[in-house]
Amino acid sequence: MKLYEKLADEIEQAVRRGVFVAGERILSIRQASQQHGVGIKTVLHAYALLESRGVVETRPQLGYFVRELAEPQAARNPVVPVTAVASEVDVSRLVLATLRSIRAQDAVPLGSPYPDPTLFPWRRINQYANAIARRHSNWNLIDDLPPGNPELIRQIARRYAENGVPVDPGEIIITLGATEAINLSLQAVAKPGDTVAVESPTYYAMLHAIERLGMRAIEVPTHPADGIDVDMLARIIDQQKIAACMVMPNFQNPLGFQMPDERKKQLVDLLAAHDIPAIENDVYQELYYGETRPSTLKNFDKKGLVLHCASFSKSLTASYRIGWAMPGRYRAQVEKLKFLNTLTTPSVPQVAVADYLRNDGYDRHLRNVRKVYRQQARIMSAMVLRFFPAGTRISTPQGGYVLWVELPERVDSMRLYQAALACSITIGPGTMFSTRNDFRHFIRLNYSYPWNAQTEAALRTLGELVATMA
Amino acid sequence: MKLYEKLADEIEQAVRRGVFVAGERILSIRQASQQHGVGIKTVLHAYALLESRGVVETRPQLGYFVRELAEPQAARNPVVPVTAVASEVDVSRLVLATLRSIRAQDAVPLGSPYPDPTLFPWRRINQYANAIARRHSNWNLIDDLPPGNPELIRQIARRYAENGVPVDPGEIIITLGATEAINLSLQAVAKPGDTVAVESPTYYAMLHAIERLGMRAIEVPTHPADGIDVDMLARIIDQQKIAACMVMPNFQNPLGFQMPDERKKQLVDLLAAHDIPAIENDVYQELYYGETRPSTLKNFDKKGLVLHCASFSKSLTASYRIGWAMPGRYRAQVEKLKFLNTLTTPSVPQVAVADYLRNDGYDRHLRNVRKVYRQQARIMSAMVLRFFPAGTRISTPQGGYVLWVELPERVDSMRLYQAALACSITIGPGTMFSTRNDFRHFIRLNYSYPWNAQTEAALRTLGELVATMA
Repeated sequence: MKLYEKLADEIEQAVRRGVFVAGERILSIRQASQQHGVGIKTVLHAYALLESRGVVETRPQLGYFVRELAEPQAARNPVVPVTAVASEVDVSRLVLATLRSIRAQDAVPLGSPYPDPTLFPWRRINQYANAIARRHSNWNLIDDLPPGNPELIRQIARRYAENGVPVDPGEIIITLGATEAINLSLQAVAKPGDTVAVESPTYYAMLHAIERLGMRAIEVPTHPADGIDVDMLARIIDQQKIAACMVMPNFQNPLGFQMPDERKKQLVDLLAAHDIPAIENDVYQELYYGETRPSTLKNFDKKGLVLHCASFSKSLTASYRIGWAMPGRYRAQVEKLKFLNTLTTPSVPQVAVADYLRNDGYDRHLRNVRKVYRQQARIMSAMVLRFFPAGTRISTPQGGYVLWVELPERVDSMRLYQAALACSITIGPGTMFSTRNDFRHFIRLNYSYPWNAQTEAALRTLGELVATMA
Repeated sequence: MKLYEKLADEIEQAVRRGVFVAGERILSIRQASQQHGVGIKTVLHAYALLESRGVVETRPQLGYFVRELAEPQAARNPVVPVTAVASEVDVSRLVLATLRSIRAQDAVPLGSPYPDPTLFPWRRINQYANAIARRHSNWNLIDDLPPGNPELIRQIARRYAENGVPVDPGEIIITLGATEAINLSLQAVAKPGDTVAVESPTYYAMLHAIERLGMRAIEVPTHPADGIDVDMLARIIDQQKIAACMVMPNFQNPLGFQMPDERKKQLVDLLAAHDIPAIENDVYQELYYGETRPSTLKNFDKKGLVLHCASFSKSLTASYRIGWAMPGRYRAQVEKLKFLNTLTTPSVPQVAVADYLRNDGYDRHLRNVRKVYRQQARIMSAMVLRFFPAGTRISTPQGGYVLWVELPERVDSMRLYQAALACSITIGPGTMFSTRNDFRHFIRLNYSYPWNAQTEAALRTLGELVATMA
């Protein structure tokens, strides 16, 4: 790589990382020459290259200015035939194998479902846990039996109330992560053989819940910008019996959209009209990029048909596996199933999280995490568009920490996954997010980890692999 | 209470607690008078009372000697009609309500299902947990995905191997307590609507597993001395389709028996002949009163039909909820169900227990616990026989820490439970251990807590309540 190219890359990266923001003037030719210890000519070459890349623009007499980065293109929504038949679900083997492969600790973890833990207040929470453990007795096991530790329940209810979500603390049941909350919610409202409507693509935990109970899934087209196609869902409901609908209205994994309030209301009303329960997975609720926490389906639920599920795994600590359900009118059933399924959620982690929430800077922590993710979403998006071949399209995440990438149609994401693994890079193959083959040429990328040279090299390699396969 | 009665009680308690053992001489009249600072006459009265109670005997010219305590009578085995129909299971509400009532922390916890934690090395395990938490990262979450932490699995396998149980570490799957192990095992081998054979009485977790999956239970008479009636089970199998058999061959809760090897083999052979899987709950395996750890059904299993479930909750720490399954030929299904059910068992507790097992005195701890429980079993047995009215019969626990008490037939254990609760005493009503009404006049008592004046008073009160109701 030539010296001027190196300089151009360096400046572009700084822009991508938000060091320089749109409209800001960068160093003059002379200043840059001094600063970087290179000749005037090299800087001129570098700036010309940056201009051709659309990173900066010249304004006569004023100098070089950072341009607005091009808006990433939204991924196309694959057309899903409405006549689709409900299918049996068996994706867990693939998902487990994929998760296991992430074990290779020196791999670049673009396929990880977990957020980068280094941003999390793990030390602080553990100090609480340690203090609690010292005064812990078996009585706590009994105190914190389902529905769970009363103070933790109160703290969770308080956060909802502060965000305008109507919550009765008596409705909350602590679970082992959102996984268990979703499983129990589904078991409370549907039985083996029933058909359940899910988004397409959908987060695989939803498919796991269906698979676990031997139900059938019907996939409803879901738009990367605003969520499940409610009209299509209405037509499906007219055609067949749907026992429940499972959705992720905020920052869906993998698409990253936030359903607009109007759409959420429309969905809740449609389901209410047919008395169909809605299982809402809201694990990314705290990781919004906008000004305020988004609404939930609960905000529009008049009949108690929404079973709201969430956890602290994506926003505070994945290791404690503390989740909860607010199951509306199905509260008694879910509480009973929780007791039957795992008896109780371990007590020390429940109390540690409650203590942290009461005493510590959870909001400050969240503000920081949101800022970082929002920033890294921009970087990851720009880098994918830069390194991947033409025909690549990406989502525009409005929260969370994953990017959904549509590759040229000939690329098989499972083959890409294998090839990437051989280069110590993991990705989330699109096949994990559906019972069908619609997302064979899609991948999910985790951008929660700090952007660095290794990530950039990995993305460049991925881009090359995709280009070869396309 | 008169002075001589107080002295007699004090000495009797010392005997019950094993301070003086059978055949040992106690203080002479003169020595006792000096020692206790009371008159000769008081001691004479006290010793006479003790003689009349059968606690001591006089040997002419030699003095007063401790007598062998009367052997407790074994509880009768209620006769269960073999024509019994499989019944729907719905006991969880009662059990949860009972567990919750134990929350009253100043109540005497005779109804608690948990062992007294003060004997457990909680501090030590927490030191490990704290050390692990400090170096923990999200990678551990992935490393310890199902089947679980490799070192913990190895340590568990090592203990089995050392006790002559044939184990392939690759068969072990870490779960959230034995509860989850039992649930997943049952789900792996049977489906909703199937009929499952259980002991009668049975540990309620077995009934919960059946209830959770919408199966039916058929109860097989189970003898307090040697376990499930294998001949009766054979006849039931001849009459109807049994999808699985759930048993607790060692120190069954509530009966406390240890099935003799011959019976275990007979049971395994019977089930193997009909290709019926056996779910073995062996959570009390380490709490034996004999010389060596008892055999398991695994020892006799040639066809991989035994799904063995256990945990550390009864012998090391109830708070960590670390259990495991060794599901024989059903390994793949159970591992998949574990992943679907709760994704993973929290990592830090897994590693903390592994570290403790590798570095610490687990065997020394267990030797101590066994000694204490064996001793307290004797005290509790003697006290029940002393305070409860005629017609009371008790089990002879060979391990674990619960006593099964048959009350005079007119006593309703649920009414007794309510009356006891009003006196700040909890008990385990017999109705929790069956889907039928056979054990209405039985109760389960926990004797893991150190025997003291409060416990003795509680037992006296219980005895009075029973006498009133009888």
